[in-house]
Amino acid sequence: MAASKCTRLCGETSRCFLNSVDTVLFDCDGVLWRGDEAVPGAPDVINGLKSMGKRVFYLTNNSTKTRSMYVDKLCRMGFRAVPGDVFGTAYCTAVYLRDIVRLQGKVYLVGGRALSDELEAAGIGHLGTGPDPVIGGFSDWGSMGSDREVKAVVIGFDEHFSYMKLTRALHYLQDSSCLFIATNTDTRLPLEGGKVIPGTGCLVRAVETAAHRKAQVIGKPSSFMFDCVVQDCGLDPSRTVMVGDRLDTDILMGSTCGIRTLLTLTGFSSLEDAKSYQESGSLSLVPDYYVNSIADLLPALSGEQQ
Amino acid sequence: MAASKCTRLCGETSRCFLNSVDTVLFDCDGVLWRGDEAVPGAPDVINGLKSMGKRVFYLTNNSTKTRSMYVDKLCRMGFRAVPGDVFGTAYCTAVYLRDIVRLQGKVYLVGGRALSDELEAAGIGHLGTGPDPVIGGFSDWGSMGSDREVKAVVIGFDEHFSYMKLTRALHYLQDSSCLFIATNTDTRLPLEGGKVIPGTGCLVRAVETAAHRKAQVIGKPSSFMFDCVVQDCGLDPSRTVMVGDRLDTDILMGSTCGIRTLLTLTGFSSLEDAKSYQESGSLSLVPDYYVNSIADLLPALSGEQQ
Repeated sequence: MAASKCTRLCGETSRCFLNSVDTVLFDCDGVLWRGDEAVPGAPDVINGLKSMGKRVFYLTNNSTKTRSMYVDKLCRMGFRAVPGDVFGTAYCTAVYLRDIVRLQGKVYLVGGRALSDELEAAGIGHLGTGPDPVIGGFSDWGSMGSDREVKAVVIGFDEHFSYMKLTRALHYLQDSSCLFIATNTDTRLPLEGGKVIPGTGCLVRAVETAAHRKAQVIGKPSSFMFDCVVQDCGLDPSRTVMVGDRLDTDILMGSTCGIRTLLTLTGFSSLEDAKSYQESGSLSLVPDYYVNSIADLLPALSGEQQ
Repeated sequence: MAASKCTRLCGETSRCFLNSVDTVLFDCDGVLWRGDEAVPGAPDVINGLKSMGKRVFYLTNNSTKTRSMYVDKLCRMGFRAVPGDVFGTAYCTAVYLRDIVRLQGKVYLVGGRALSDELEAAGIGHLGTGPDPVIGGFSDWGSMGSDREVKAVVIGFDEHFSYMKLTRALHYLQDSSCLFIATNTDTRLPLEGGKVIPGTGCLVRAVETAAHRKAQVIGKPSSFMFDCVVQDCGLDPSRTVMVGDRLDTDILMGSTCGIRTLLTLTGFSSLEDAKSYQESGSLSLVPDYYVNSIADLLPALSGEQQ
């Protein structure tokens, strides 16, 4: 089993692989693009897969865009996409609250415009977005977060994250019946040129530390986004593959969900990382296949089309 | 050994105990006061100990007050104190940077006025205090924290903690030669009436998560504040006791430093917590003695004085 893992896809193996899948789930950042630049050849791969009749879905932990914002970005870069193809954590968090827990009450939201829009589209009331300036002193801060209709705290990416928001979140979460949800726990967000900024995981850890509770995570490696695709669109796990650049989110989710996995080396994780997990026996973090870039699939795709 | 731990001090055992110590180290919040209210009888205990010729020092993880601000608070509540008695994490952090690592460069400070004042008093340049409003977007945030003179990041309590500060701290800490120091890792700050607000530990965890590094901690249970007392004033460990309300900071520090420990039940930890550590064999978290309140020592103190 271990020996057949982490196989490089090229030539004939690529063609066999493509023949064996109907549905391809793609992570976005580090796979299709880096920051605002498409990975060279990536749009041709996506559009080629679609032309072959494969179904393509986009699964991203990033909570800063709605489905339609993702479609705008994808199309601007040359990827064919419609809103129903996109499963981001902003959309999936709203689905979770509406359809799974059927929230009766409001959300205290540490998050930005996209999360706010997706919650609204799902008919879920919320408060908390935007700046929350420091007011008063210690004795005032002891009584923040007092809206009795709040029944869930949601933590997503929020550039306005602050001590005041942390304090409100803590006070809501002191009620053990208040739900505690994180869009994802990525520790860093990669930008162009190797630059990084703190990811949502940093905000989640701050709130978890204050609340003495662990958040329920919507994003990968949790299987919830996969479940959303299954629920909305159906798929045959034996003919589905997850393509991603992170072993601890994309590949682990694929393994957990019983589908095949493909690591691309244009993003976060390296082949050495994968080999190291393989040697230590952590096989759920080892991809079935890898490519240097998803553009490596282009010859097999055009071969199929000839 | 285990059987002699966690003994309640009363009557004759209190008198024997007091005869066996020359130096008493007191945590403040939850021991001497709660918020802005003195624990009833606590000032009489401190002043009685001083009248008997015992040396009293105040060791607090709180970084929001300078030595002289603590003296003001202590005296206002009726405790006799001079600045040299007070070892808070604002002062001890400055001592650490000036005397132990002999910092050549500036500090990026996530912290308030007291930390800023203590750093200044120690001749250490710093930047970062006060609000840090959100400016620009993702691409701007990739290049924050660019002062090349910064050689240390210090995280203390800061009500202006924000995503921008988190981002600057991350960028400084990407240079592995940049020191990373936390005043303390307390997860909550208790206020009057059982209310709580997030403690410095929440901010530290956020920065640690972003930086993929662990901070060096100045406050208890680290032994550094004890070392400061030894360095500045000298003491005989065999005739010294640490009095505190938290097993995981005060009592653990006392155990680590080889001095006796006394838990008071007016604050964070309960007797059940201590018994539970005793049963699980975590003896460094079990105090040698306990009292319901340090006021329980008053009869023995007045007995001594009679």
